[in-house]
Amino acid sequence: MKLLSKSIHTTHLNCTLSEEHIKRYEHVISALHYKLEQASELTGWLHYPQQNHDALLTQIEQVSAEIRQEADVLIVVGVGGSFLGARAILDALTPYFGRQMQGIEVIYVGQNMSGAYINQLLKYIVDKRVYVNVISKSGGTMEPALAFRAMRQYMEGKYGEQEAARRIIVTTDAEKGILKGIADKAGYRQFVIPDDIGGRFSVLTPVGLLPVAAADIDIRALMAGAKQAAEELDEPSLEHNDAYKYAVMRHILYKEGYKIELLASFEPSLNKFHEWWKQLFGESEGKDKKGLYPSTVNFSTDLHSIGQFIQDGSPILFETLLHFQSIQSDFTVNNDLRDEDGLNYLAGRTFNEINALSKQGTALAHAEGGVPVIQLELPKLDAFHLGYLIYFFMKACAISAYLLDVNPFDQPGVEAYKKKMLELLDK
Amino acid sequence: MKLLSKSIHTTHLNCTLSEEHIKRYEHVISALHYKLEQASELTGWLHYPQQNHDALLTQIEQVSAEIRQEADVLIVVGVGGSFLGARAILDALTPYFGRQMQGIEVIYVGQNMSGAYINQLLKYIVDKRVYVNVISKSGGTMEPALAFRAMRQYMEGKYGEQEAARRIIVTTDAEKGILKGIADKAGYRQFVIPDDIGGRFSVLTPVGLLPVAAADIDIRALMAGAKQAAEELDEPSLEHNDAYKYAVMRHILYKEGYKIELLASFEPSLNKFHEWWKQLFGESEGKDKKGLYPSTVNFSTDLHSIGQFIQDGSPILFETLLHFQSIQSDFTVNNDLRDEDGLNYLAGRTFNEINALSKQGTALAHAEGGVPVIQLELPKLDAFHLGYLIYFFMKACAISAYLLDVNPFDQPGVEAYKKKMLELLDK
Repeated sequence: MKLLSKSIHTTHLNCTLSEEHIKRYEHVISALHYKLEQASELTGWLHYPQQNHDALLTQIEQVSAEIRQEADVLIVVGVGGSFLGARAILDALTPYFGRQMQGIEVIYVGQNMSGAYINQLLKYIVDKRVYVNVISKSGGTMEPALAFRAMRQYMEGKYGEQEAARRIIVTTDAEKGILKGIADKAGYRQFVIPDDIGGRFSVLTPVGLLPVAAADIDIRALMAGAKQAAEELDEPSLEHNDAYKYAVMRHILYKEGYKIELLASFEPSLNKFHEWWKQLFGESEGKDKKGLYPSTVNFSTDLHSIGQFIQDGSPILFETLLHFQSIQSDFTVNNDLRDEDGLNYLAGRTFNEINALSKQGTALAHAEGGVPVIQLELPKLDAFHLGYLIYFFMKACAISAYLLDVNPFDQPGVEAYKKKMLELLDK
Repeated sequence: MKLLSKSIHTTHLNCTLSEEHIKRYEHVISALHYKLEQASELTGWLHYPQQNHDALLTQIEQVSAEIRQEADVLIVVGVGGSFLGARAILDALTPYFGRQMQGIEVIYVGQNMSGAYINQLLKYIVDKRVYVNVISKSGGTMEPALAFRAMRQYMEGKYGEQEAARRIIVTTDAEKGILKGIADKAGYRQFVIPDDIGGRFSVLTPVGLLPVAAADIDIRALMAGAKQAAEELDEPSLEHNDAYKYAVMRHILYKEGYKIELLASFEPSLNKFHEWWKQLFGESEGKDKKGLYPSTVNFSTDLHSIGQFIQDGSPILFETLLHFQSIQSDFTVNNDLRDEDGLNYLAGRTFNEINALSKQGTALAHAEGGVPVIQLELPKLDAFHLGYLIYFFMKACAISAYLLDVNPFDQPGVEAYKKKMLELLDK
């Protein structure tokens, strides 16, 4: 079964994104496929889902069962790739309301430098049972390091050093780094971030898996979806590889002068998935003065906001519509005898059904407005298909960066503000 | 006191955004100032804060006190300009955690067509005391109309028709429209959306004020800030009008080929304010194939995501940094005798202080990377200064659209997807 092969398609008028144009990249793509396979650095994610991680998954499941048993709140300390992936999956698959009442509540800290945020967080958890998962390859990034310093003091004050040591779980390098040193000395339990997997490609390692498992999301289904993607998308031929097709489509549009790729979803729970996608593509492609600017919208909401710009504004963007055919739950339009709003003709139809039509209507309207539209459809919004989609985007992203002739796996520009900040702090 | 006059400034290298260049717009701006003053349609917001709304504010305060007394949850039904403004203020000024435990919880519905969202919402509020505020000029937009149909059935089922009628408050047109008809027939209390104020300019009318007041935010301080802005920014001279200066700066950058304006904040509670800003500028400017694409980031979080792109990627964007010198609460870095993370040199400094330095470092780093940076600084993140800032952006936006020679007050492109959707629904 190829999940996407029949459902990746384009709607476009007045645009050269033709099958023929795409085909011209066949040889280039095949060469890049082998380049990626043979790359020596930071490509550990490429076949990770196909390897046997049974022992690791069991260990994560055991720790996460313990967390659910002994905590109300799991505080995840991390920034960038250390939390965006877990948050993406958690938000997509947990209920919209009352998250803090349904088993474990996952709260993120260390991703910002807001004093109000951490101050209010520490007040919020004062009566709650807490576990901490601090996630950092080095332990040296200032925002999470300061947040962890605060959380460590809090935990030791609340539980004493010994019990705090049981309730702090570290995800870090196997051998080196500040955080590794702290964890060894204090005797914290540790999960390893593989050396050959960079932050934004790490969601399917313990980095993302532990917080996700703590919220009782099925990480084996997630990994099974990723595995299926890794197998299907291992195909060197452009024609049979949807990730490569997507990479080529967006590259052609970039070459034609489009500046922005707008990822659009129709389910609000995907907003944080969007944030993961933005880091993945923005950090991988945005270098050497190149790259599509990754932006995201959630419809219908944003049809009544940025929708006007998409339809009629500067013709600098194309859209990638992400659609899940089936969503966890639904709601049926009720009949109203008064029918004062004139909507009885929709009674009996469901919100998700109408939402799917709004997706179709949006694609048609935007295409008529001259906006190229790529569509990605998946059968169901669940752990399996999210795992598939995550791998799909990672693979497409690596090849996209190669098409731009940039290194998908470094991020030299992130250091610039850190350096300036340290200078200002007079270190 | 001019709030912004000394704190709007630019940091830019290799960029022609000079004082001299800005001055060249003096006559144009003066002419556009009078054009806006004399415009006959949809400019009611322009002097609204300077008018006496005492009776209205008192009425809103009374109803909102009643809501706080008799409800745990206020459901706001609306889309686009009917909810983005209220949500922006509410998120900026209410605590980060446990919002549902601190007085009233405000929840939005009708801004999306997710069946899961409304289904889970109705389950979430089953044991809670509920008020509904439905906000729509016409009542004809499908998403909020369907959500209101559902909420109305829910309220009548829960409370009976009579008590539901007391608990449903309508903000709509004074005379016409579907929602007005429903409200009259059912005897719902009504607040009026002024005829001469469009959705995205309506946050300082009952549209935004009632939900904000319900959460016990000081709407008089909000209006006082807006009033001060309306007075200060009524100055026709570019030199003495920061809103016009900002409009000219962004226009010059647009003319130079920049495609994206990136509004950046350093406090996560401003994320929803960003969404309001995106609608304001995107819908006002994005027409006739023109306009800057409005995008937003929250730092430090996004420095570890899209930061790489900003620093080193396609040189198509400029940044507008929004900074509040003082935030509600703060947190001090603790000393740790072990100092295993090497951060004791920061002990005694506060997160907000370090955050302000990260703002400075970011501006320097991005400017060195060739990104033009406009800075907007306000003394304090509170209702007064948010009111000021909201008006500042509305005025700057109207003049910006005039500079592009487009109508700031219409949104013809929003109809396109609606039309397609209705066709698909076989109406």
